[in-house]
Amino acid sequence: MSKMRRSERIVRLTQILLEHPHRVLSLTEMAEKLASAKSSLSEDLAIIRDVMEAEGLGTLETQAGAAGGVRYVPGLRADLAEQFVQQVAQRLCSGDRILPGGFLYMSDVLGQTDVLDTAGKMFASRFREAGAEFVVTVETKGIPLAVATAKYLNVPMVIVRRDHKVTEGSSVSVNYVSGSRRIQTMSLSRRSLPERTKVLIIDDFMKAGGTAKALADLMREFQVEVVGVGVFISTIDPLDKMIDNYVSLATLSEMNEATREVAITPGTYFA
Amino acid sequence: MSKMRRSERIVRLTQILLEHPHRVLSLTEMAEKLASAKSSLSEDLAIIRDVMEAEGLGTLETQAGAAGGVRYVPGLRADLAEQFVQQVAQRLCSGDRILPGGFLYMSDVLGQTDVLDTAGKMFASRFREAGAEFVVTVETKGIPLAVATAKYLNVPMVIVRRDHKVTEGSSVSVNYVSGSRRIQTMSLSRRSLPERTKVLIIDDFMKAGGTAKALADLMREFQVEVVGVGVFISTIDPLDKMIDNYVSLATLSEMNEATREVAITPGTYFA
Repeated sequence: MSKMRRSERIVRLTQILLEHPHRVLSLTEMAEKLASAKSSLSEDLAIIRDVMEAEGLGTLETQAGAAGGVRYVPGLRADLAEQFVQQVAQRLCSGDRILPGGFLYMSDVLGQTDVLDTAGKMFASRFREAGAEFVVTVETKGIPLAVATAKYLNVPMVIVRRDHKVTEGSSVSVNYVSGSRRIQTMSLSRRSLPERTKVLIIDDFMKAGGTAKALADLMREFQVEVVGVGVFISTIDPLDKMIDNYVSLATLSEMNEATREVAITPGTYFA
Repeated sequence: MSKMRRSERIVRLTQILLEHPHRVLSLTEMAEKLASAKSSLSEDLAIIRDVMEAEGLGTLETQAGAAGGVRYVPGLRADLAEQFVQQVAQRLCSGDRILPGGFLYMSDVLGQTDVLDTAGKMFASRFREAGAEFVVTVETKGIPLAVATAKYLNVPMVIVRRDHKVTEGSSVSVNYVSGSRRIQTMSLSRRSLPERTKVLIIDDFMKAGGTAKALADLMREFQVEVVGVGVFISTIDPLDKMIDNYVSLATLSEMNEATREVAITPGTYFA
């Protein structure tokens, strides 16, 4: 490959870094790939890091030395995160969304790629030091959020099923009592998680926390450590959840079926 | 904002473009945002386009004139796509993966962020001219693929449920006969899809095509047009599927429970 000009190198480096968050990329390998000197690469990376930091989009961590490498650590500046939650709240705060039984319709919002992408960045940014080796969710509505978070943390994503499936092989199941007081089941394929790993739990909604607690119980069966719990929206009531230390992006602070009023405020992420 | 240097501008432009595939970005707005002349921007974009095309990662489409804009169209060069399918095949072609009943365990592969990302790029690239306004999938294992595809097509993603859920509001349901000869149900919230739109169906696996056909029937109830069907893996048998013109990334061409042999070959994507 012929030598690249700086501007070409910067396009390629930016692209490689953005597409591989949280992966340490070897400077030696990149220098070979781009047919450039490591010193030029270091200057390029400094420019990229400065722009990322100025725009509040994360940073680059570089390790010096012969085995030197660089890693893109996604982030989202606090004001951009707040702006995002305000936009989501605006969309969700509509009386039309209140369903019989006091549920809030939010499937459309959780299908928007921009929403998923930003939420994934926020979770990945908050839990970047937690050491999660997998992102775990339970079907169904939390899956897209788990996909986006796993992407920005560069770890695989694991889906817990509501019942045992023939396509999953031998599985471990637990029962729990859901918010609607029914006994429910969760089931996870034995092959899906190695023992003694660390996981981050991601879900779309938390009321009392029964689902998250059941997920944590299931993880214990796998001898797996839960290093964090992230939910898109948690309800203000009950204040005492069955899980401590969860991170929610937004709080459903009011939903009145009679007056059709919905209020959504920033979540524990901002506390 | 102070004027940016070319190299800084290129970092920012590359990042904006990569994070917003298939969106027309106004040159005027970008020039303001980056405090730069449109002519400089055009030169930057030409550099970015050249690198993207040389690396086989897609292209930029620019529209000239006062209302001029630029759009990143993701793609994946044929040899990189083939290499990807070979890697996936290598991982899946293991006798250990054959489950009782003749199912192939592939949930772990479908949880790998690299796999999802590349598969999403391939589907988005193949269906880029199809005009899909939504990506539709049915729970559960196709959801991560649908998320990745929707991201690269810049359209929302819609999840069809296996049964009617209280959190989805009023829904339309259809029954169908699955590959295992059982009668199954699919249900989709009325609010999730506007009438007279176009959708792309994405799923993880296709044998006879009963699920895809049921999804297409459900779409008809919504007066929605199916402009394409993409599956991660289709089986070679039966050759005649209930759906025509599907695109599969890989073909399961052999799976023998007795000899524990599995063979996976490139799918109709490469035909």
